[in-house]
Amino acid sequence: MLGDVLNSCQEKKPLIHCISNYVSINDCANLVLACGASPIMADTPEETAEITMISDAVVLNLGMLSPRKLDALLRSGTAASNAGKPVIFDPVGVSSSGFRLDAASELLEHVKFSVIRGNASEIVTLANGRMGRRGVDVDASIADFAEQHAKDLSLRSGAVVVVSGDVDIVTDGKICWHVYNGHPMMRFVTGSGCMLSCLIGSYVGASPENPLEASLAAVCAMGLCGEIAYDRLASQDGSGSYRIYLMDAIYHLKAEQLERGASYERSRI
Amino acid sequence: MLGDVLNSCQEKKPLIHCISNYVSINDCANLVLACGASPIMADTPEETAEITMISDAVVLNLGMLSPRKLDALLRSGTAASNAGKPVIFDPVGVSSSGFRLDAASELLEHVKFSVIRGNASEIVTLANGRMGRRGVDVDASIADFAEQHAKDLSLRSGAVVVVSGDVDIVTDGKICWHVYNGHPMMRFVTGSGCMLSCLIGSYVGASPENPLEASLAAVCAMGLCGEIAYDRLASQDGSGSYRIYLMDAIYHLKAEQLERGASYERSRI
Amino acid sequence: MLGDVLNSCQEKKPLIHCISNYVSINDCANLVLACGASPIMADTPEETAEITMISDAVVLNLGMLSPRKLDALLRSGTAASNAGKPVIFDPVGVSSSGFRLDAASELLEHVKFSVIRGNASEIVTLANGRMGRRGVDVDASIADFAEQHAKDLSLRSGAVVVVSGDVDIVTDGKICWHVYNGHPMMRFVTGSGCMLSCLIGSYVGASPENPLEASLAAVCAMGLCGEIAYDRLASQDGSGSYRIYLMDAIYHLKAEQLERGASYERSRI
Repeated sequence: MLGDVLNSCQEKKPLIHCISNYVSINDCANLVLACGASPIMADTPEETAEITMISDAVVLNLGMLSPRKLDALLRSGTAASNAGKPVIFDPVGVSSSGFRLDAASELLEHVKFSVIRGNASEIVTLANGRMGRRGVDVDASIADFAEQHAKDLSLRSGAVVVVSGDVDIVTDGKICWHVYNGHPMMRFVTGSGCMLSCLIGSYVGASPENPLEASLAAVCAMGLCGEIAYDRLASQDGSGSYRIYLMDAIYHLKAEQLERGASYERSRI
Repeated sequence: MLGDVLNSCQEKKPLIHCISNYVSINDCANLVLACGASPIMADTPEETAEITMISDAVVLNLGMLSPRKLDALLRSGTAASNAGKPVIFDPVGVSSSGFRLDAASELLEHVKFSVIRGNASEIVTLANGRMGRRGVDVDASIADFAEQHAKDLSLRSGAVVVVSGDVDIVTDGKICWHVYNGHPMMRFVTGSGCMLSCLIGSYVGASPENPLEASLAAVCAMGLCGEIAYDRLASQDGSGSYRIYLMDAIYHLKAEQLERGASYERSRI
Repeated sequence: MLGDVLNSCQEKKPLIHCISNYVSINDCANLVLACGASPIMADTPEETAEITMISDAVVLNLGMLSPRKLDALLRSGTAASNAGKPVIFDPVGVSSSGFRLDAASELLEHVKFSVIRGNASEIVTLANGRMGRRGVDVDASIADFAEQHAKDLSLRSGAVVVVSGDVDIVTDGKICWHVYNGHPMMRFVTGSGCMLSCLIGSYVGASPENPLEASLAAVCAMGLCGEIAYDRLASQDGSGSYRIYLMDAIYHLKAEQLERGASYERSRI
């Protein structure tokens, strides 16, 4: 089943409009290509809604937010919502700045998201409408509360919610999956979360009728590729090579490999 | 002859002012270094014309266009035109957005371009002054018409026109070369077109007296390096490693290797 | 002693707020992760001071300057100064544009810098308040004058001044170190200077009580990693692979390796 999602992406080659951030924008575009989709990265209000309308899905990333970028996010988000296109939201750093939190609230109000993906700190901040304490990294102490907050946010927003962490969470508010794929080395690749959001966008763009399963497939695929990349490291290889191997693994990933390697189970909560 | 172009770039080390886009900007700067030239990437109206004046050539890229970036493109383009410096134009995504098409028309009106490089969809859009249908990728159905449109655009603009595709086209409106170098794997490297435009800028910056031959050399060199990078791929290497090998190949390319490996012929049309 | 600086960074994992530039921003973030610190890259005036206040150090980079970016640099720089947080300044391209030189003067007036790092042309320009002649590269003819200018700038600004070149200079105006680590191949990695400034920020962020020694450790570490990366190059490896190996070396660098490999001596001038 997860393999069908991957195959669908490679067959349909959806055009994914990513309003990314400039830290990870190159990796995001290359990841979209590597998984078989096609990226377009326009982020200015003058053209962003027009480009959304020729795309199959939109990924909205809050990183390096500016007023102009917020304008672009709102225009693309509402254009996609009105046209029934999937919109993926990555609230990067929403727990670090009031400007981003206000922007996230505005986006949640105006855009119908298919998927929201963040780390525990970001998802808890979104669910609570209040800021956490620090940076863009996971705050381990709040990871335990993340599942309930993810479900609440999912029910309130209508979106599938994905929480990245040691164990990833994927929920539509009713069903909740725990994903065990992944490797700690992925934390040494800046923007690996942004890249996952683009992989979700690519998979959901090809399988819009089933955002829960497509998101689960993307989370398992990214984590599995993180494991494959780690296994490939030679003695002198470090975080630089690891980032390249991660991209290589996404490029080579096959449906049967994903089916075999995916490690997840349904939460009993 | 093509080898002389490469040698000239490595000897003269021209300073290339690239107004690039943020998807490919790092690869563009590294490519300019790898081929022996020196990059400067300033893109704000407050300084862009001043920086153009200390440069040997300018590369204007339409990707991720904003009004401020358009202002910078116009200032650098007109400053370079007035000073007789080569200007290379890469109309990224001009077939996807009315904002970019209007901007391209304004640039064509005010700037004397030495070279215009795009894919078939972009060049046909520029030649017709009307938009194509989809994204930044090549629309195969229009590739057949590309050669005539490239010649028309060349005669109208006075620029050498390069069309990237399965077979690349390089024309000054009278002579037209077909280039067979390249590999389909290059499509998995985002910004490989932007990188080629910067290689053209580097070669033309060192050989401004002959933009047709310098463009031909750059197109052959980029394609040949795409082949060399592909030959180097090991079993687990994918699009991540390929991108690195492509840069390595540009770095190592020698004049005799280019002469030997270049595959092109004059079009009979 | 230099090894203690490295260990301190890996133990304290300081949060480094980098206002970088879009050419090198991805490499900068990945380098901060590789050395054991944590990056946050916000650069818009709406949030930059707020993010500075949760960070352990700030790196201000003048590359691709715009009026909005200057506003962000000033806000973060003054917020950090007022809070006693270390601020590192990288005056990229200050010798190429009047806009950047004016901005640098304004920053020097309002911000108390802990460290200023540039190439000889940039440091001489800052020290003189007048522009040099060309691009962002080192102008070899002025390297000889760099040491005296670095000391003058250090005494005037109160900052440790680092001059990158064939022999690097690290001075607090009284003590002056010459560093012999490094490799010419580093010039083929765009933003290697920006990356060094972020390594300095990471080390000083973890050892704010001793910016001279932390800067010296960072300069030796970066140069040593440039040597390690070069030693690893295979026959087909070029500047693309070299950039990856450089990151790998930063990731793997251990205190004892730095102590053993650091090559520096006190200047007799």
